[in-house]
Amino acid sequence: MSVPSTDPPFPCETLLIVGVGLIGGAIAQHARALKVAKTVVGLGRDQSRLDAAVRAGVIDRGSTNANALGPIDLAIVCTPVDRVVDDVMSLVASKAPPRLITDAGSVKESICEPLKSVRQFVGSHPLAGSEKSGFEHASAVQFKDRVCVLTPDAETPADVLQSVDRFWRAIGMQTVSMPAPVHDRILARTSHFPHVVAYALAGLLDTGDAQFVAGGFRDTTGIAASDAGLWTSILMANRHAVLETLRLHAEQMKSIEASLERGDAEALRETLARAQEARESLNR
Amino acid sequence: MSVPSTDPPFPCETLLIVGVGLIGGAIAQHARALKVAKTVVGLGRDQSRLDAAVRAGVIDRGSTNANALGPIDLAIVCTPVDRVVDDVMSLVASKAPPRLITDAGSVKESICEPLKSVRQFVGSHPLAGSEKSGFEHASAVQFKDRVCVLTPDAETPADVLQSVDRFWRAIGMQTVSMPAPVHDRILARTSHFPHVVAYALAGLLDTGDAQFVAGGFRDTTGIAASDAGLWTSILMANRHAVLETLRLHAEQMKSIEASLERGDAEALRETLARAQEARESLNR
Repeated sequence: MSVPSTDPPFPCETLLIVGVGLIGGAIAQHARALKVAKTVVGLGRDQSRLDAAVRAGVIDRGSTNANALGPIDLAIVCTPVDRVVDDVMSLVASKAPPRLITDAGSVKESICEPLKSVRQFVGSHPLAGSEKSGFEHASAVQFKDRVCVLTPDAETPADVLQSVDRFWRAIGMQTVSMPAPVHDRILARTSHFPHVVAYALAGLLDTGDAQFVAGGFRDTTGIAASDAGLWTSILMANRHAVLETLRLHAEQMKSIEASLERGDAEALRETLARAQEARESLNR
Repeated sequence: MSVPSTDPPFPCETLLIVGVGLIGGAIAQHARALKVAKTVVGLGRDQSRLDAAVRAGVIDRGSTNANALGPIDLAIVCTPVDRVVDDVMSLVASKAPPRLITDAGSVKESICEPLKSVRQFVGSHPLAGSEKSGFEHASAVQFKDRVCVLTPDAETPADVLQSVDRFWRAIGMQTVSMPAPVHDRILARTSHFPHVVAYALAGLLDTGDAQFVAGGFRDTTGIAASDAGLWTSILMANRHAVLETLRLHAEQMKSIEASLERGDAEALRETLARAQEARESLNR
């Protein structure tokens, strides 16, 4: 979509990160390092964790009280996907609502739909992450040249979209806009459902198998070390698209099962060769 | 199992590698670098590829004729799993059969059962590999401290087992012995079936998804870039154990599907948490 060009709003005075965990901490660090905001404030539920984040140089100051923040140019809500809507509404209801609000959630329709009427909000999903958690691992998250998806709807004011878009580009990301449901269907295939598969595969391990696990298994199940609670929220929030992908995958597995049962090497080889080609195209 | 201790047979005079590809080339390179054999000879079907392997310093000399090799202390057959039995039988029928023969195949029962009567043979599976192929990538394969499974049966002479065992340890591997069917059931879980899952997942990609693929998807589907032909042979050769694992995995996927359909976050979280714990135990 085309966006009118005006003066860039960044660097801004004050950036607010709600939820200073892995992704929130990484955004804060990048915004500070790249001088995208003069001050980065953290809002959280645990003052001792916020103090630790200040000591670690992740944020400038931290508070547990949304009414004690002062003026905020941009707030980025980085809490688990099932808390984003409430956290945005709390900011909107606070004494000095932020000029702009976005989020970093891995699902978009369940967040953007209830926030349709919040004029200063547009949804974002920076495609960067790790199976780790906590701001202590934030430096493992890279944004440079990664994609950030923005999910405006027909009502999103152009200047809100443009400003949030510029923020992500200011920390090095490439931005793409699409409707929230389109985002959710794509991410079900490329991220959410693969987590389901990895968890199900890791769950098959028998006691004593560990020494017979080669690199392939470690790679294939690596994301199964991701926080089960966070991923339950993501999968539940996008369950219709995830179920759709799960059924397509089950069909593919059924066809492989049938080839193995029949001893039909040629049919199996064709299925694997198509998949091999799809996978290799990712490296091109 | 306990093996009588005698003088180590390594370094030996001449090691033969049948099939100088990724794994055969890597074994040859390690045997030369660690001086486990004075001469490493390659046997293959394409003289120009063997000549290239000599020029690359992978083997000392290469031949396409099993009758032109001279005396061989140990032959390691590194051809695709559906060719190993024929290649071992050709060596046995050659003018000067090797004193010892083993293989490097990822499945063991379909190889060791037909070779039961070959007294100088014991099956091996070095758990090292890569999704790449060709001796040009051999240096990507590491053996140090990796596990090599040996699959003797009740008839295997103790000195054959002992000597082959010492070869793998001489190139840095840790050896484990077990019956071939036990090996095949474990590897179905830890290696063969994960390839099925990775291929099926890579096959779900839509055109245009590539830019929305994060690191997790790349890792989870990395082994789907493995040669489809080779993996068809492996899966077919171990299809009963792979089918058993496939059905267990399908049950786990059905239970996740049911939790998603019911919107039962607690049941889903429990399933994922158990899998997360299993995966994390691999890192301990």
